[in-house]
Parts: sequence; C-alpha cells; structure tokens
Amino acid sequence: MKALVYHGVGKITLEERPTPTLVEPTDAIVKVTKTTICGTDLHILKGDVATCHPGRILGHEGVGVIEAVGLSVSTFKPGDRVLISCITACGRCAYCRKGMYSHCTTGGWILGNVIDGAQAEFVRIPHADTSLYPLPQGADEEALVMLSDILPTGFECGVLNGKIEPGATVAIVGAGPIGLAALLTAQFYAPSAIIMIDLDDNRLAVSKQFGATATLNSADGSVVEQVKRLTEGRGVDTAIEAVGIPVTFNLCEDIVAPGGVIANIGVHGVKVDLHLERLWSQNVTITTRLVDTASTPMLLKTVQSGKLAPKQLITHRFKLKQILEAYDTFGKAATTKALKVIIET
Amino acid sequence: MKALVYHGVGKITLEERPTPTLVEPTDAIVKVTKTTICGTDLHILKGDVATCHPGRILGHEGVGVIEAVGLSVSTFKPGDRVLISCITACGRCAYCRKGMYSHCTTGGWILGNVIDGAQAEFVRIPHADTSLYPLPQGADEEALVMLSDILPTGFECGVLNGKIEPGATVAIVGAGPIGLAALLTAQFYAPSAIIMIDLDDNRLAVSKQFGATATLNSADGSVVEQVKRLTEGRGVDTAIEAVGIPVTFNLCEDIVAPGGVIANIGVHGVKVDLHLERLWSQNVTITTRLVDTASTPMLLKTVQSGKLAPKQLITHRFKLKQILEAYDTFGKAATTKALKVIIET
Amino acid sequence: MKALVYHGVGKITLEERPTPTLVEPTDAIVKVTKTTICGTDLHILKGDVATCHPGRILGHEGVGVIEAVGLSVSTFKPGDRVLISCITACGRCAYCRKGMYSHCTTGGWILGNVIDGAQAEFVRIPHADTSLYPLPQGADEEALVMLSDILPTGFECGVLNGKIEPGATVAIVGAGPIGLAALLTAQFYAPSAIIMIDLDDNRLAVSKQFGATATLNSADGSVVEQVKRLTEGRGVDTAIEAVGIPVTFNLCEDIVAPGGVIANIGVHGVKVDLHLERLWSQNVTITTRLVDTASTPMLLKTVQSGKLAPKQLITHRFKLKQILEAYDTFGKAATTKALKVIIET
Amino acid sequence: MKALVYHGVGKITLEERPTPTLVEPTDAIVKVTKTTICGTDLHILKGDVATCHPGRILGHEGVGVIEAVGLSVSTFKPGDRVLISCITACGRCAYCRKGMYSHCTTGGWILGNVIDGAQAEFVRIPHADTSLYPLPQGADEEALVMLSDILPTGFECGVLNGKIEPGATVAIVGAGPIGLAALLTAQFYAPSAIIMIDLDDNRLAVSKQFGATATLNSADGSVVEQVKRLTEGRGVDTAIEAVGIPVTFNLCEDIVAPGGVIANIGVHGVKVDLHLERLWSQNVTITTRLVDTASTPMLLKTVQSGKLAPKQLITHRFKLKQILEAYDTFGKAATTKALKVIIET
Repeated sequence: MKALVYHGVGKITLEERPTPTLVEPTDAIVKVTKTTICGTDLHILKGDVATCHPGRILGHEGVGVIEAVGLSVSTFKPGDRVLISCITACGRCAYCRKGMYSHCTTGGWILGNVIDGAQAEFVRIPHADTSLYPLPQGADEEALVMLSDILPTGFECGVLNGKIEPGATVAIVGAGPIGLAALLTAQFYAPSAIIMIDLDDNRLAVSKQFGATATLNSADGSVVEQVKRLTEGRGVDTAIEAVGIPVTFNLCEDIVAPGGVIANIGVHGVKVDLHLERLWSQNVTITTRLVDTASTPMLLKTVQSGKLAPKQLITHRFKLKQILEAYDTFGKAATTKALKVIIET
Repeated sequence: MKALVYHGVGKITLEERPTPTLVEPTDAIVKVTKTTICGTDLHILKGDVATCHPGRILGHEGVGVIEAVGLSVSTFKPGDRVLISCITACGRCAYCRKGMYSHCTTGGWILGNVIDGAQAEFVRIPHADTSLYPLPQGADEEALVMLSDILPTGFECGVLNGKIEPGATVAIVGAGPIGLAALLTAQFYAPSAIIMIDLDDNRLAVSKQFGATATLNSADGSVVEQVKRLTEGRGVDTAIEAVGIPVTFNLCEDIVAPGGVIANIGVHGVKVDLHLERLWSQNVTITTRLVDTASTPMLLKTVQSGKLAPKQLITHRFKLKQILEAYDTFGKAATTKALKVIIET
Repeated sequence: MKALVYHGVGKITLEERPTPTLVEPTDAIVKVTKTTICGTDLHILKGDVATCHPGRILGHEGVGVIEAVGLSVSTFKPGDRVLISCITACGRCAYCRKGMYSHCTTGGWILGNVIDGAQAEFVRIPHADTSLYPLPQGADEEALVMLSDILPTGFECGVLNGKIEPGATVAIVGAGPIGLAALLTAQFYAPSAIIMIDLDDNRLAVSKQFGATATLNSADGSVVEQVKRLTEGRGVDTAIEAVGIPVTFNLCEDIVAPGGVIANIGVHGVKVDLHLERLWSQNVTITTRLVDTASTPMLLKTVQSGKLAPKQLITHRFKLKQILEAYDTFGKAATTKALKVIIET
Repeated sequence: MKALVYHGVGKITLEERPTPTLVEPTDAIVKVTKTTICGTDLHILKGDVATCHPGRILGHEGVGVIEAVGLSVSTFKPGDRVLISCITACGRCAYCRKGMYSHCTTGGWILGNVIDGAQAEFVRIPHADTSLYPLPQGADEEALVMLSDILPTGFECGVLNGKIEPGATVAIVGAGPIGLAALLTAQFYAPSAIIMIDLDDNRLAVSKQFGATATLNSADGSVVEQVKRLTEGRGVDTAIEAVGIPVTFNLCEDIVAPGGVIANIGVHGVKVDLHLERLWSQNVTITTRLVDTASTPMLLKTVQSGKLAPKQLITHRFKLKQILEAYDTFGKAATTKALKVIIET
C-alpha cells in the first residue's frame, strides 16, 4: 500500500509499504478513506517528538472502513464505517476507567508516533472497540475527520477545562486550527464574549466568521488593555492558550480575571514564567491536558444535530498521491491560508 | 485601649489608641477576647505588604463579644459572642454573590491591613452581618480562633482546591501552621496517604501526631523518588504547596501524578518556573486562592461535632500586654517550636 | 397610587392605595414602570396560595426606577433603573450564603404574596441590595421584565437542575410560558434534541419557532413511544416537568432514560405516584426547586450579548388601568394565545 | 463441582454441576474461595426477580483465584487472586464509557441472575478485564468479599448520590447490612451527624458501634420530630433510604431539609407517594441507582489504608457444604442477628 513515511528531520516520502495485519485479538485493520495533517505532524518533522523514530508512517486522524477485526472485537465488523480517534484506549486500565484515555497504559497518543499511523491506505488500530467510533448514518466523512483530534482537543483542553458558562467572557490566544476548534465548541455554552487574539489578520477574519465577538491583533502591544476594556476592567473568565510559547502563556496570565481559568492547549517546548507573586491571591485555575477524546461520542451528536459545523475548518483537498504537496500547503499556512487539509486515499 | 501598632519595617509597639466607634450602619464593634498572630503579620513586619501603612493596628484573627452594632446589622446584638473572619465580605457584590469573598469589592483582606485590626482590645468590623459568625453554645474560644484564618485557608486553598477524595494520595509541602491546617482538614475526605514534607524534624514529628501517614525531610535531596516510591511510581493525586517559594512549588510539579492537582496556599514573593514543556500533556490542574472563608460555617460544625480539633495547633499562650514577646516567640518558631500562639486581651 | 388588589377567591380590583414608604434601612421604594402577570397570580386567584391573604397587592415581577432607599442600601440610589427579582434575599442567612435565596429566612417568595407586590405604581422592596438588579445601559425594559421570574425559573429549575449538556436529548412537558422559558434557555447548552410536548397545537407551533427540534401533541396517547423513537429507544437525558399535575409528572417518569434527570418546575397541588418499583434501578435523579434567581446576573449578560431574546415571550401589552383586562386575556390563554403580557404603569 | 441452585420459589439445593468453561475470549474462570449471600438472593427465593429462572446457580459476590482466561484477557492470568464484582461491565458500550456499568448493554447485574453465579466452586466471569479486580498483596479475603456488592452499593447509591459533605447531617433509614455499609462509608466525608433509624434495637446498637452519632427506633412514631430536634428544626441534608418500602421512603420525604437529597438504595416492589404538593418548592433531589461498582478501586484503597474496616459486617461463617444453613441463618436475621455471612468453598 501507499504510505507517508517519516525518515528523520525534514524528510518524508510517499512510498510503498506492506499492508498491516491483525496482531492482537483486540485489533482492527481500517481502510482509510480520508485523513488529514496535524500541527503535531509538523512538530515530528522538526524532530521535536523524540518518541517518533524514522521509518514511521505518520498520521493520527481519519475515517475509513473496517477491513478486518480481531477475535475479541465486538463493536465492529468488516464493512463498518468508522472514525479513528487520535488516542488509543484499552478501556481497562485505571486511567481509561476514569476517562483519561490520553494516559492509557498501553495506548494514549501512539498512532503515527510509536506505531504506524493513518496517512496510508490501511492502518492497524489496537484496542479497536474503544479507539474507533461508528460513523452515524449519512454522516459527512470530511466533516468527521475533524473529530479525530482537533475538535476534541479544542473542546476538552480548552472549553471543558476552561469551564465556559453561559454569559461568561472568553479569550482564545491563537487563531490557528486548534484555537478555531476551541472557538467553535466554546459556543456550545453561550458565552457573552469570545475574543480571538492572533498576529495573523486573515485568521482573525476567519475567527469573526466562526463566531468571535471581537478580534485583537497582538502585534500592537495593547492587547491586555484592550481585553480589560472589553470586560469592564476585570479580564476574562476563561483564557485559552492555543499557541504553546511563553509569550502567549504570559498573555493569558495578564488577562485572566480573579476567579478565572487559564486552559492550556498549546504544546510547549520550554518552561514558562508563572507569576505567582501576583496570581497567588487571584483564585485562578491553570489546566493542562493531552486530549482524551472522551467527548467524541458527544461531539458526533452535536455534528449530527447541526450544532457544530466542522467542515468550515477545511480549506484544501488533496489525493493521497499529492500528500507531499498537502504537507507543503499546510506547512506554509501564513501564505496559503490553510487551516485543515483533507487527503483522500 | 491597648493595641499592637505597626510603625514600619521591623517596628511594632503596644500602645494606647482610641477605642473604635461605628462608622457605617453595617459596622459592629467587637470587644476582642482572644486573638493570635499570623505568618502574614510577619510579612507585614518585613515590609512585604505594600497596602499596610505605618500606624496600622495589626491582626485579622480572633473571637470576641459584640459591643455595639450599626443600624442595619440584623444578625448580631451587643453581648453576642462572635468569631471574626480574616476576610470582610459585603455579601452584595458580584464576587460575594458567588462566595468569592476574598475579592469583595469593598472588603476582602482589609482587617489589620488597610483598616485597623484585631490585636487590640476592640476592633471595628465592617459588613458585620457577613463578616462575623456566631459562636456556638459552649464553644471553646481558643479552638475557634483557629477558624478566623488558618483553618479555612488550609481547607479552602489546599484541601477543597486540591479536590481530595477518599482513597487518594496527598503530599503537603510545608509543615508550618498552614500546612498542618491542611493536614487536619484533608482528613475530612479519608485519603489513603498524606505525606508531609518539610526541613524541620520537629514539625514532621508533629505532623505524624496530626495524622500524616508518612513524613519526609526534604534536606536529603531524594524526596521526589521517595514520593514516587510511596505512590507506586505515579506521584500524588494532590500536591499542596504551603511554603511560598520557587523550590517548593517546583517540588510540587515534580511529584504530582498525571491527572493530579497542585493546590497553592503559599504567599509568593517572586515568580516560579512552570515546566509546561513537561506538564502540558499531564492533565494537571494548578490552583491559587486567597481564602474566602466561605467554609467557616461548615468548619464550625466539624469542630462542634468533634471531627476537627483545632486546639492542637496552639503551642503558646500570652496576655495582650505580652504581645511583643508573643511576636518574638512566633517569629522564632524554629527554636521555640511555636505553631499558633493565643493572645488573651 | 393605583394597585391591583386581591380580595379573596376570584376577586381582584384595581384601586387606590397609599404609596409605600421605607420601613427598614435595607428597603428601597421602586416606581414600577413595567410589570406582568404570572401563572402563580392565577393560582392565588383560585385560592391555592394559603399565605396570600385578601387585601394584598399582587405581582412579583417588573422593572422600575428607584424612588428612595434606606440608610444602609449601598448598591442603588434614586433614579437608578432596576430589575425586580421575584425572590427577596437578605444575603446574610445560611440559605442566602449558599445561593438558595428561595429559602431566605426573612425573604424568599414574599412579594405579592405575604407583602404587597409590583402590580402597582410603587412597590417597597426589602433587602434591596440583594433583591434588585441594575438594568444595563440601553437595556430593553420589556425584555427584562421576563427576567424577574419566568426565565430564571425555566433556567434554574428546568435547565440547570436538568443538567443539560451539549449533544443531550431533552423533553419539555408543557409549552406554556414556563416551558418556553426552559426551551429558550436550554439552548445555552447545545442539546441535540429538544422535544416539546403539549396538548395545545398553537403552543407547539410557537415552540418550533423558539427552537424545539420536535413537537408532540400528547392528546393521541402515543407520546411515550414517539419519544422513544426519537431517542433510539433510550428515552431522554432530561425530562422537564412544566405543568404541575400527576399525569405530566408520570409522563416524565415514562420517558426519562437510564441515568437521566427529571427536573420538576411545575407547582403541584396533589401528590404523584413515583414508580420506584421500576425506577429504583434506573439511576435517575428527580429534582424540585423554587427559583432562587441566583442566575439573574448571568441571564442579564446573555440578554445583553444577544444569546437570549426574551421579548418573543410577550404577546400582549396593556396599561395599568387595563390590568383587569390583562388578567382576563392571560387567564384565557387557550383562546387568546397569550404567553406573557406587559403592563405599563 | 458443588453449587447452590435455585429451583423456583422457596427452593434451593446444593448440588453437583459441571464446572464452567470459557465461552468468549473475554471470559475468565474463577475458582471461588469465599462467597456470601445478599438480600437480593432472598428476593430471588421469594420469586421477586423475574429474570432469574429455575436452574440458576445463585450468588454475585466473592473472591477467588483465576483458573483460566480467554484469549483477549490481558489484566489477569491463572493464579491471580481476584475480587468478583456483582456487576459485569464490557467497558466498551456507551453506558460503560461513562462509568454506568450497571446498565452495560451486555452486562449489568447478570451474575447469579441471568447467568450462573458465585455460590459454587467455580464461576465464569464475562468481560473479565473490567469485571474483576486484582486483590492487593496481603489483603484480607474475608474483608474484601464485602466489596463485591454491599460496600459499593452503600457508598455509590447512598453516600455519593447523597452528596454527603463535611459538617453535614445524614439520616439512614434502615440499619440492615446495606444501611450499615452506607454508615461506614458516609464517614469518609466527616459529616457532623449520622442518625440511624430502624425498628430493630440490636441493629441500632450495632450502628452505634459502627459510628452513628444518634439512633432512633421508628416504632414509637415520633421519629420525624426527633430528627427535626437533632437538626435544629431543619431536617437532614441527606436522607438515605435503605429498606425499599413506601413507609420508609415517605419518612425520608418527611425528614429531608430544604436543599437536601433523598438517596434511594432500597429495592422497591411497589410505587410510592411522592408529595410534590409539598416538595415542589423545597429544592430537593431524589436519586435512584443500581450500583455501578465504579468505586471499587477506590474502596480497595480505603480498605488497604485502614480507612474502612469491612470485616465488622461479618457475623457468621460457614463452609460451602453448610450453605443451606447459611441461607437459613441469613434469612432469619432478626433472631440470629446475622449481618453478612461468609461461605468458604
């Protein structure tokens, strides 16, 4: 089969690889119909993800059709259309028991990282019963590819952890795909204000279309004052960090209201300053989270009922044979204005 | 009346001051019968608390008897025995409405800080209806002085924010009065382990008597490994920071389990390093809080029913005329082994 | 001043009454600009509310302007535009401290019940600081009259108690004003389905306009099966009872899914059958609540930000001198299609 | 092997049956070392449990040793000592995903009900990975038999659903084994009062030993007044129903405070009267629950750390060959004073 393979820093190729086969009785083999590229894949390409070794097929998102299932798989049978979760969950360990699938002792984020991934014609999914989701009748496959990772990530790490409530004020720092996913799902809770902050005017314009009540370009240096002015001097109830660098985390510390939450989504490479000399008395909560995809069944329902329209995140479409071009387009988002790309196999 | 007055860095005197009188219709004048000294008072003495100016009567803890009440005070009448809360709450503003009294727009921590305090024969209490609590019949006054600040602080900032649950593992970094208050109230929730960490062997010995399941002296440098060993390699579900310096906060970052909470109680003077490059994916929660004393009614019930014995925190007793000696004893805790001192007026 | 006075079962008159004056230092006198009629007023008229004696001025809803305030009222001054809460709260008692204003020991639902109410030119509001809310700049007074009672009732008793979540399924039994208030505020949480059930086709048609995803007329006897069919056989996650009679409560018991909630809003006059022989093992929760209006500040924000449009509940408008006609119109809702009526003073 | 078999109303025999074998790849065969008898077994004997047909081996509690495991069982291997949960959970269905194992679509309470149970030398456990728990090193097997059903039932249905908090007041109606299990686990949360109510003075005396702060014999007809007197006229924050008949449920309705919870544990055979004509405005919550045993891992930790001593529930011990005598003793609890009996195989 054809697969996108990582060969060390900066090197990926589309090449022929053996079709995967069942290894454990809990495995399924999925014929991938649509996949996408994640910001994390770019991190791998930069060599930032130590667990991902050369030779690995990348990709942890997609939808497809069950090709084969192991002996103990009871939820799926060949021919079933499925959504692939970026998180593999055994459903048995102490972490899985409390819905913290991200830390599953034999799973977590392994797909396209420590085992071969979904940017290929076929993929082996361990713990299939608890790592795949049936596609609803008549579902739009493209839309649902967004539910493999980006929407549960924005929702769980940003919105749920951020404890967004009706009437509340929210700021999202970073209007990339993940910040936009938080923006879309924040609207489940009817906040009175969602302020999007970014350096890229195009992404801010997109944010407006996606439901932001205000947008601020952080280039001009007065963002803190502007957020305060938009919130009667208080700051925001929820500040969502969707970039992953010290300056954006510090901005969140500056704009969170007393009693508020800083919900971190960003993947950070270095430590940040936590200004406890000021925040110790501000009754704030700071959260971190690797997505658990525990909300996937719920998100499927919101898509099916029209409360969430994930398709608007898709800006480009490619065939699998064009995947290197897709990587290029996605990697140069500032000029291509790419958000999410769909790759059809 | 006699009062302990702050006169700038390092200078306090016991002197004669006019007895306070009612200013607002919501005020009460309380004849103080017992008060105590807080670690925060020592911070003021060092000049760390910018809002506290020379000339201020210190003290934000105590019990006493109502001497006079303003026109609109309906809960208390002269002669009533009351507990003074360290936090003044109007009960009306948006923060008070959600129980976040610490940020009351006309209150918060003002007593012995921006208005005269309770280390005196009399004290004026603004917003008396919502800043004083009736002492239950037959209550032990000494015990209840511990409910003005230290016990709600340990409980709200450490235990409640730390989300301690039956069977959980807890580490408390810092076995001073506030860490011990967290230790006592953590036991409300039947955790399976409470590990106390400090540099002072005497305080660790006290911790054992107060219910710690393990004690670790952090001098030897292997505390992280020892905590891991005591928790099957996972780290603790809740790490309570009860010191207020970078090294202890960092220790909490090192020992918190995936999915766990770092509940900060410590008053910090400088920023700390937050290792998001490691913690971003660990599903941890970090909380800060200035005590709200919203739990005071509940704590009174636990004392009355014998579930909490605050008196064991008291190591020394003085008369008001000896208050300078009391400050000296409390300030030299390492040698005097002082925890909390009672000052009788 | 003119006031609508209750004189025993079935008898109300519009008559001249002395203008109220300040009694307690915590009182305010409000010049009522707009008021409305509640289903509870009709209950009083039928003699169902034993606490309401003849001679009482009715009405517990409205907006107005502060005319005078007692000595200790600090939030308001004459000339301020205010929203009147149907619930009077002292802000000091144990119930108020936990936001359960409905059971305030010196308040609760007393307005137009045990003290004179708001269907008059002026009304005395006890505990004004915690029982009135400032109207935002530029607010639409008519819209905000809906926030005195009906919207917080639908929201707190139905939606909040019903624990509605994104993607969930909801049924609301009763499409009168209170059921419609629940329908409007349920949409704060993006449920995937809201099924409205009533006997009145006009109200069901209104429900559709207000956002119901399905409507069922309970006349035909197959409602339970239809709800099951709409929910994949499971029943609904939340069933809201918004009528107050045994048959509608029993319907909720029949349609609630395992793990679901029955949130009762209805004012019941007789006991109901609780089928524990079937429900004991169904992990259901049943809640009751007299509205606390603790959510009023939040609801004000959702109105100001356009997330909630309460004005659509208003079907008729009258002057105070026409209030008997207004009662007639509101009382004959089946023929007049009245939902809420506005009475301008 | 020897097994206790149900043969229709009132008829059980100890007889020879084929040793069970693996059927599904997710099965385990457990050699039972200790089992017990549940009140539900007596219900079966009376013919109250329609799903349990003649020929069934009874019993849903016990500890044992793994004899064999199916191909996909990964948590256990032959020789492992395990705790059997009364609830079988697949870990995959929508209910299991949210921890509501009681309603697992291919499990729930099936053991000793719709499939053969644990009052035998061997038992087949479906979905073994998620329906068995490893016994901790050095665990007391007798104590842990209490964790198969009775302790999670008392804890989840009574204590957790009852939202017991430090300082709260609790009444438990029914001091049989299940009420006592609630009593033991209620103490995890340091309530200020736990009032036990029963007709049997022996059980009330046991309750005192187990930590009740007050006991009331409901025979004398003044229980409601006595509860009110013990709670300053308010009633209790949590009323736990641990009997399962109308009169005890009604008692809970009479003693619950405004804002309180009635947590039903009892298995009811007939409907009860719910007095909504009084309770509609009392802000109460009523919960039902079939135990999920989701708390089993936590309860194991509390036992291991000495916070819970389940062994005190055991009053009698028998060998498997004496099981008919054990049933007799357990069935005549009023005279034998039996709480839980241990049956050793």
